[in-house]
Amino acid sequence: MSKLDFGTARLGFRAGTTTPRDFLESCLKQIDKREPVVRAFVTLNIEGARKAADASTKRWKSKKPLSSIDGLPIAIKDIIETVDMPTEFGSTIFKGWNGGRDSACAYALRQAGAVIVGKAVTTEFAGAPPGPTTNPHDKRRTPGGSSSGSAAAVAAGMVPVAIGTQVGGSVLRPASFCGIVGFKPTFGALNRGGIGDQFSQNCIGTLSHTLEDAWAVAHEIAARVGGDPGFLPFAGGAEPAAPRRPDVLAVLETDGWAVADAGAKKALAAFLKNLERAGVTLIDRKTSKRVAQLEEAIAGASDLSLGINDWEKIWPFADMELRDGERFSPNFRKAVLNGTKMTVDGYIALLKKRDHARDVLMGLAGDVDACITLGSAGPAPIGIESTGNAVFNMPASMLRNPALSLPLLKCDGLPLGLQLLGFPNRERALSGVAAWTTAFGSKK
Amino acid sequence: MSKLDFGTARLGFRAGTTTPRDFLESCLKQIDKREPVVRAFVTLNIEGARKAADASTKRWKSKKPLSSIDGLPIAIKDIIETVDMPTEFGSTIFKGWNGGRDSACAYALRQAGAVIVGKAVTTEFAGAPPGPTTNPHDKRRTPGGSSSGSAAAVAAGMVPVAIGTQVGGSVLRPASFCGIVGFKPTFGALNRGGIGDQFSQNCIGTLSHTLEDAWAVAHEIAARVGGDPGFLPFAGGAEPAAPRRPDVLAVLETDGWAVADAGAKKALAAFLKNLERAGVTLIDRKTSKRVAQLEEAIAGASDLSLGINDWEKIWPFADMELRDGERFSPNFRKAVLNGTKMTVDGYIALLKKRDHARDVLMGLAGDVDACITLGSAGPAPIGIESTGNAVFNMPASMLRNPALSLPLLKCDGLPLGLQLLGFPNRERALSGVAAWTTAFGSKK
Repeated sequence: MSKLDFGTARLGFRAGTTTPRDFLESCLKQIDKREPVVRAFVTLNIEGARKAADASTKRWKSKKPLSSIDGLPIAIKDIIETVDMPTEFGSTIFKGWNGGRDSACAYALRQAGAVIVGKAVTTEFAGAPPGPTTNPHDKRRTPGGSSSGSAAAVAAGMVPVAIGTQVGGSVLRPASFCGIVGFKPTFGALNRGGIGDQFSQNCIGTLSHTLEDAWAVAHEIAARVGGDPGFLPFAGGAEPAAPRRPDVLAVLETDGWAVADAGAKKALAAFLKNLERAGVTLIDRKTSKRVAQLEEAIAGASDLSLGINDWEKIWPFADMELRDGERFSPNFRKAVLNGTKMTVDGYIALLKKRDHARDVLMGLAGDVDACITLGSAGPAPIGIESTGNAVFNMPASMLRNPALSLPLLKCDGLPLGLQLLGFPNRERALSGVAAWTTAFGSKK
Repeated sequence: MSKLDFGTARLGFRAGTTTPRDFLESCLKQIDKREPVVRAFVTLNIEGARKAADASTKRWKSKKPLSSIDGLPIAIKDIIETVDMPTEFGSTIFKGWNGGRDSACAYALRQAGAVIVGKAVTTEFAGAPPGPTTNPHDKRRTPGGSSSGSAAAVAAGMVPVAIGTQVGGSVLRPASFCGIVGFKPTFGALNRGGIGDQFSQNCIGTLSHTLEDAWAVAHEIAARVGGDPGFLPFAGGAEPAAPRRPDVLAVLETDGWAVADAGAKKALAAFLKNLERAGVTLIDRKTSKRVAQLEEAIAGASDLSLGINDWEKIWPFADMELRDGERFSPNFRKAVLNGTKMTVDGYIALLKKRDHARDVLMGLAGDVDACITLGSAGPAPIGIESTGNAVFNMPASMLRNPALSLPLLKCDGLPLGLQLLGFPNRERALSGVAAWTTAFGSKK
């Protein structure tokens, strides 16, 4: 795999040894090579990207870059509006549709000088029914979803960073399956304006090869458009904090433990043993009452998340169903109609349960630096007709806390993510733990 | 003024003495009569309304109404999407624009059987620059804004209820100026999907002649589409609680006191004296430390709200400005560009100040039943080139708590609102106080 590291390329831009246009051309070469099999993109705007890269090249040459990500080639999940390319939501209903504007993050990225290369494949309306993307590590396997194209484009070395979104497991799971960094910030921390849905667990996340690149993109977006209106914007810093060995980590099993691959469990166990040898104290449901309480609070996270999501699908999808229901896939249509059968009181009960789980998480904040678990139940499964099980990603979605999938484990020769979960709006602290864990895990 | 009371009409539908179509026709007659001067509507869909009213008539005749508002003629502010009419946001940029869908509230209203009659005039993007609407009580005067057409259509007896939105004072102020009920629920309590902006103080509100109608519409919307995703939906009940005399009310001066008309202050003072005679205990900044703290926390509410709003305008408006800036009014354009000069840290500081004020409000929750103040600094001023001062409405906007403007005061022969402010998500309690106050105030 070609590991694209924009932070390193930037040093070359600054030194004048390479340019954003050169960097883009190397990405385009890789797209030519890998895209026919990987199928990460719905639309490419190569001409627009070259123009943007040339403008960036001029800025770097005159030592006036717009930001730390000026010249960064980036892919954007195709549920996020871009003025220069259609946004199709993985649905035939929106074939060729263009709202005539940039989403908040696309606007911010362009203001920061980033080079938007293309729109990445999403499952249908970021739900379950998958697109055509294959896993860059093995074309028989799913890349995960719903940010399928975003993760695959990065993993295949076609762009250094891509924008995804997660309601259930749509950033962390594909990152785990594709062997890259997936970062889902606290709910609300990156502005979702111009995204097709506004579900209460939906977050913009970044996918990249390095923690630094994921952080830089989140930072530059937040600096220009903040988070969702009224929510605290991402304040994790322009780059991750200095590596800091965690004192205590809470090992979470989650509902996923019951279905996780034996090989995945073994890989995690080995990693945890090494952490202990390095002086990290591990606590879990057996040794800590608070961890046990958290495990209990997040039990059923998938059902809870799906229930909340079904209600929140009523608008816009039940309205869309009135006119275009025939063009939904049967699965998606069913989920939409499920929502209309719920009562608002049922929804309120789910919200209260979710809020309770977050309170329980906050009870751990004084005890541990972060929580740790698998990024997915195993490596990417064979077949692209399903995007795999998101059970390990549902807790961070329902808790609406920041989480990372780091490409530090292996299972059956395939990549597997190590997941770190932080506390809401404390991305800065999480980044120090993640930087240390990455350096530690890369040495092994 | 013609006082349209849908709750009473509904009794006729049930008894079979009148029908939704008859009711609609009386509204249309009034539109014919008043609209040339009042100019409340941007678009009318009379044919569509008649069809919807006929369908409703059939349902009532077969004793199968869809809801308590089946057959209710309603106007919708023209920043809220409707599939059968354009949504123009008070801007030439969106002349004739139709997103091809219903907003969440329009979807819910249709599902509940309501009859959407037309789109009501808004100021430019619900900001300051006004539309052509005049005050039904005096055509030389502003109806208030930004929900100008919504309030005027109701006050002129053209529809019993209209949907407005408020970020600063856009529901409560026009209600006060037009002599009708304006209800702004807790932030997030009514689903804003399909509204042009998602500002963190923006709420859907209802405007009507009776408290009952305002409540019924809020209830039926929330029952079908809830609130904003993740926020507690309106749970104030299908109708207001039984009238309940408040034990204690906190009289707020707000920043508005310094600029309020002498006549308005006098009208409020007389009303308060009557309340005391009826056994209501009044506390204020001089007699209560907690009220003084709240007054302090909401001092500067207008500047705070405008600052938050300017940042939140960056998207979508700074993006729109790149292509269509020439078509903004100079005032609106200036506000948009103001936002881009702010820093995200500046925005975060404003959010924290706002959160603090809400904490201070909650400190009063055990002491008082509600807060009370003027609905506006005076009656509607002469001139339609400005929509008047929103200073009395900014506190409830920044506190994001529920508030009502009740048409219970008079000043210079013109209507003036009495404002009641409740506690977040406690609309049920507020409704009992409002019902009692309405009955009490109407007797005087």
